[in-house]
Parts: sequence; C-alpha cells; structure tokens
Amino acid sequence: MNLVVAVDIGGTQIRTAVYEPNDSTPLKLQRVESQALKPGVYERLVKTIEAVWPGREQVTAIGFSSPGPLDPHRGIILATPNIPEWKDFPVRAKLSEHFGVPVHIDNDANLAGLAEWKYGAGRGHHNVLYLTISTGIGGGVIIEDRLLQGYHGLAAEVGHTIIDPDGPLCGCGHRGHVESFSSGPAIARYVNEQLAAGVKSTLQADPNLSARQVADAALQGDALAIAAFARAGEYLGIGVANYLAILDPSIIIFGGGVSRAGDLLFKPFEESLRKNILHPRYLEDLVITRAALGDDAGLLGARALAELRTEGVKIPP
Amino acid sequence: MNLVVAVDIGGTQIRTAVYEPNDSTPLKLQRVESQALKPGVYERLVKTIEAVWPGREQVTAIGFSSPGPLDPHRGIILATPNIPEWKDFPVRAKLSEHFGVPVHIDNDANLAGLAEWKYGAGRGHHNVLYLTISTGIGGGVIIEDRLLQGYHGLAAEVGHTIIDPDGPLCGCGHRGHVESFSSGPAIARYVNEQLAAGVKSTLQADPNLSARQVADAALQGDALAIAAFARAGEYLGIGVANYLAILDPSIIIFGGGVSRAGDLLFKPFEESLRKNILHPRYLEDLVITRAALGDDAGLLGARALAELRTEGVKIPP
Repeated sequence: MNLVVAVDIGGTQIRTAVYEPNDSTPLKLQRVESQALKPGVYERLVKTIEAVWPGREQVTAIGFSSPGPLDPHRGIILATPNIPEWKDFPVRAKLSEHFGVPVHIDNDANLAGLAEWKYGAGRGHHNVLYLTISTGIGGGVIIEDRLLQGYHGLAAEVGHTIIDPDGPLCGCGHRGHVESFSSGPAIARYVNEQLAAGVKSTLQADPNLSARQVADAALQGDALAIAAFARAGEYLGIGVANYLAILDPSIIIFGGGVSRAGDLLFKPFEESLRKNILHPRYLEDLVITRAALGDDAGLLGARALAELRTEGVKIPP
Repeated sequence: MNLVVAVDIGGTQIRTAVYEPNDSTPLKLQRVESQALKPGVYERLVKTIEAVWPGREQVTAIGFSSPGPLDPHRGIILATPNIPEWKDFPVRAKLSEHFGVPVHIDNDANLAGLAEWKYGAGRGHHNVLYLTISTGIGGGVIIEDRLLQGYHGLAAEVGHTIIDPDGPLCGCGHRGHVESFSSGPAIARYVNEQLAAGVKSTLQADPNLSARQVADAALQGDALAIAAFARAGEYLGIGVANYLAILDPSIIIFGGGVSRAGDLLFKPFEESLRKNILHPRYLEDLVITRAALGDDAGLLGARALAELRTEGVKIPP
C-alpha cells in the first residue's frame, strides 16, 4: 500500500489522518487538543499519529503542517508563538526516526495554499496565489504546479510586505505591512481609533472589539464599520496588485475568517485592485474566489506535500 | 549539430549569434542598428539572423529577446514603446515559419536575469532575483532553476509595485512604484524638485539632468546629490525587502547603468534592506552582487531560454 499519513498541528488541535492514493476520504482520522501551552506537545503529537498509524510497511511518507516560522528544507520548527515549547525543534528528524519513513514539513499557510491547488478552489490552475485573512495575513504560492518555498523556506509571506512606510504598526514590529491594514485586528483597531477621534458609530470603543463585530455593525448600515472594511479592502487591493506584478497567477483564493465578510471587504478590494494593477492584462481570465476547503486544508496540504515529494523518488513499476 | 541561434533586439541594436552547446564563445556574431523607429524592422531582423544562420539542419531552436511587454506563451510582442511598428506582432510564428525551427521568446529583463543565473553572477544559485536599474527598473526571477514567467507572461515586474500610495508618479502612470523612487530619472527628478524648493547644490535645475551627472556631483561631495542617491537606495531597500518576503532568493543581482553608482546607492540600500526586512533570516547567506555579464546578457539569455526549452523536448539518444 502507498499510504500517506498527514499531520496538522495548531495552537488548538492536533489532527492526523491516513490517506490512500486518489481517495479524498481518509481511512482514519484523529483529532485531539494540542494543549500547546503545556509541556509534552511532542509526546501528544506522536500518540495522535500512532492512533492512526497503519504500520511502517504501508506508509510511504508523513506530511506535516505546523504554524511557522519553520525551515522546510532542514525540517525544523524555528519558533512558533503558538507552541512555545518548540524552539529550533527538529521535528522532521524526530518523527522520521520514530516512524521510520520520510517526513516532509511546511507551514500551515503554504500547505493550505497547496491543498486548495490540489483539492480545492485552485484545481486545474498552475499558478495560484492563496491568501488567508484572519488575525494575521498569510499565504501560499504555487508556480507552475510547484510550491514556492524559497532558499530559506521563508517565501510567500504575503501579509508582510510594506505598502506604506508611514502605515500602522504591524504585529511583527514593522510598519505599513498589508497585515497592518487588512487583518481582523487591523480593522478593529481602525474602528477604535476613529471612535477615539470622535467619529459616531453604533460600535463602542473596546480593546477586544473583533472584525466579526465590525462586520455585523456594517451589515446593519453603520457607516464607520463599512468604512473600516472599505479601507481594509482598498489596501488589500494595493498589496495584491503588487503580488500580481511579481507572480502573475491565474487565480487568487481567499481563506480565513475575515474573508467571510464577503462584499464588505471584496467589493472595495476589487475596485482597488482594478485601480492599482499595473496593467489590465493581469486581470484577463483571472479568477478571484473563496477557499473551498474548510478546517481540513492543513491536513490535505500536508498530504499533498508528502505525495508531491514522494513522486520524485518513486521506484518505477 | 545542436546549434542555438540567439537574437536580441532593442531600440538601438539587433544582435544575433550562433552558439554550440557548452561553449560560451559564439561561432558567429552579428550586430546592426535596429533603426526601430523606421519601417522594416522585421525585415532587418530576418536579414541579421540570416547573416549568422548555419542552415536549418544544424539549428535546434531560436531564442529571442525583446523589450516588453510581450506574451512569451503565445510568442507575441504586445506593444513595445521601443519598436512602435510592432503591435500585437506574432514574432514567434513569423520567425518559426521563416526558419523552420522552434522559436522561444521572452523580454530582455527576464532573459538578462536568466543569463546571469546560467552564465553570470548567479551561477550555482537556484533562486535568483535580478534587478536592472536604469531609465526604468525591470527584473527577472529564477525559482528552483526555472524562469518565473507567470500565467500571462507578465511576472517579475519588480519596478512596478507600490511602496507608497502617495509617492511620486511613475512613468507607467501609477503612483509610488519602486521605479518612481529609484530609477535614474527618479533620482534626477528629485534633485530638480529640491533645487526648485531652494535647496543649495552645485547642480543646476535642468530638465535633462541625468543620474550620471548627479552621481558625479555626489562623488564631489554635493550634499543634495548624495541625499538623492540615499533616498533612491532607501526606497529600493523597501521594495527589495518586499521581494525577499515573497520570493526568498539566495542571491540578488543588480544590473543597469544606475547600479554603476556603487556605494552611493548600495550603502543606503543595504542599510534600508536590513531595517525593512521582515526577519534577519532572509539575509543569512544572501549574496548581494553586481551583474557579471555586459551588453551580451540579452543574447546569452535568449540562448539559455532556447536551450532550456529544447531540453524538455529532446529525443532520447
């Protein structure tokens, strides 16, 4: 059997699954809480893999998805804020030694992009730009059917390019990144700033304000809430115009909670993209769509990575 | 014989050459004036190829470099300002029909990048960012030993991403592009603006002022001229920090006349890059260097493209 074991670890859950080739339904699936702030994350991870493990002879590879930053070439988790126990953690070597099969790793955003390309909204496309917009902005890029990883494995950081050197402070400490304008917290922060400046709204100043609450107010007609999404969409359009000039994909796929705001965000986004794109030719036949895969995008991306990397070393029949 | 014929057409010259595999010296080389503003450019092009043509049986492919924008997938020159006669001009089909061999085309900046990767400063690297800084800013990107072209063939427009929505007007009509801050004309324009605002300098306001003249004044200690290059370098650092976050190359290669200004531009550039880079890891082992190939980069890039595309279809021995 040529089974692939997929692993997706996040701050909340560890998911593991076993897949047969050409079958999208897993043979087995396991979900447990990662309890990422408590010791023993790696041991819980191993147990959750063992819970689905079909035996070493059956498995060609393990695919592994984790929050970044990580080094996919060396198989090391560098320092992910979601799992404080893991610093320069050689997860590939450890899992590979334990289970006796090759392990391939990459970060969750890259692998969600890879999953959308192979199983989701991007099927049939060869050049894909995937962006996930939630508390941060991340992404994954497929170029001619290959995942863009980069020399250090740090490519496709689509939330962290500067589009205004005098822009707001980003969570990463830099100024004017796309994420500092268009992520969920950026939308909420803008509303709080405008409220503090005296702008009238049905919303109340609140350090815990969420983009979801702003979206609800916008749907009720609140002008400030609508303006907050319009601003996020406008700057997102500038960032994406830049990415098109560099990458020239045939499809843009949006995932993440904030993208559920729909037209509130995407109407101003598309208007901004049309205004800021270097040349209208980039938009010819360009598909702009929402992610098709749900919470299993990380698992499916880990599976896709393992299958892609295995193809290269398959022994011919 | 597996000869490749390389063609490089620009606003000034048409160059053609014939190369043997694994030999960097052409068997034959021809240069003529393109007289690009006069009718008959295509006929002059054909004659200049015929002047080196070794016979159809000897040639595996023609590689063709031209100013853009062009569509490398369909083999069409869309509308290059340097050759006004060519609008939606199907150069690949015409040359292929005339000479009876496959023709592969791409724009001069992409192919200069490809040439630097294969024969120049980027040899041995797999992920290359090439930028040429002169009257405009263009570039070429190599990802895992493949030229980044994009779905429409419009990728790697590294001069035309927005780094400040309120920035100067770019030659392309948009605002705040890297080119509008850091190209030769952008440097000269900044000096003229500062002179008009009353800043003292050894330079005189002059609509024909060149970046070369500004560089000469800077080398003589002129404070405004030094500041003009410092500003160009600072914004170039922002743009390149963005490209590293997306592409994560192992080498950046600078070509073009303005890059000959050396430290005047590159000291402030490197300082800005260090300040604006998302994370210092992008800079680990990163090579920043000058282009190694001179005026023949276009020819060598056309040759490299033809060889790369031919490898894919070679009949096994």
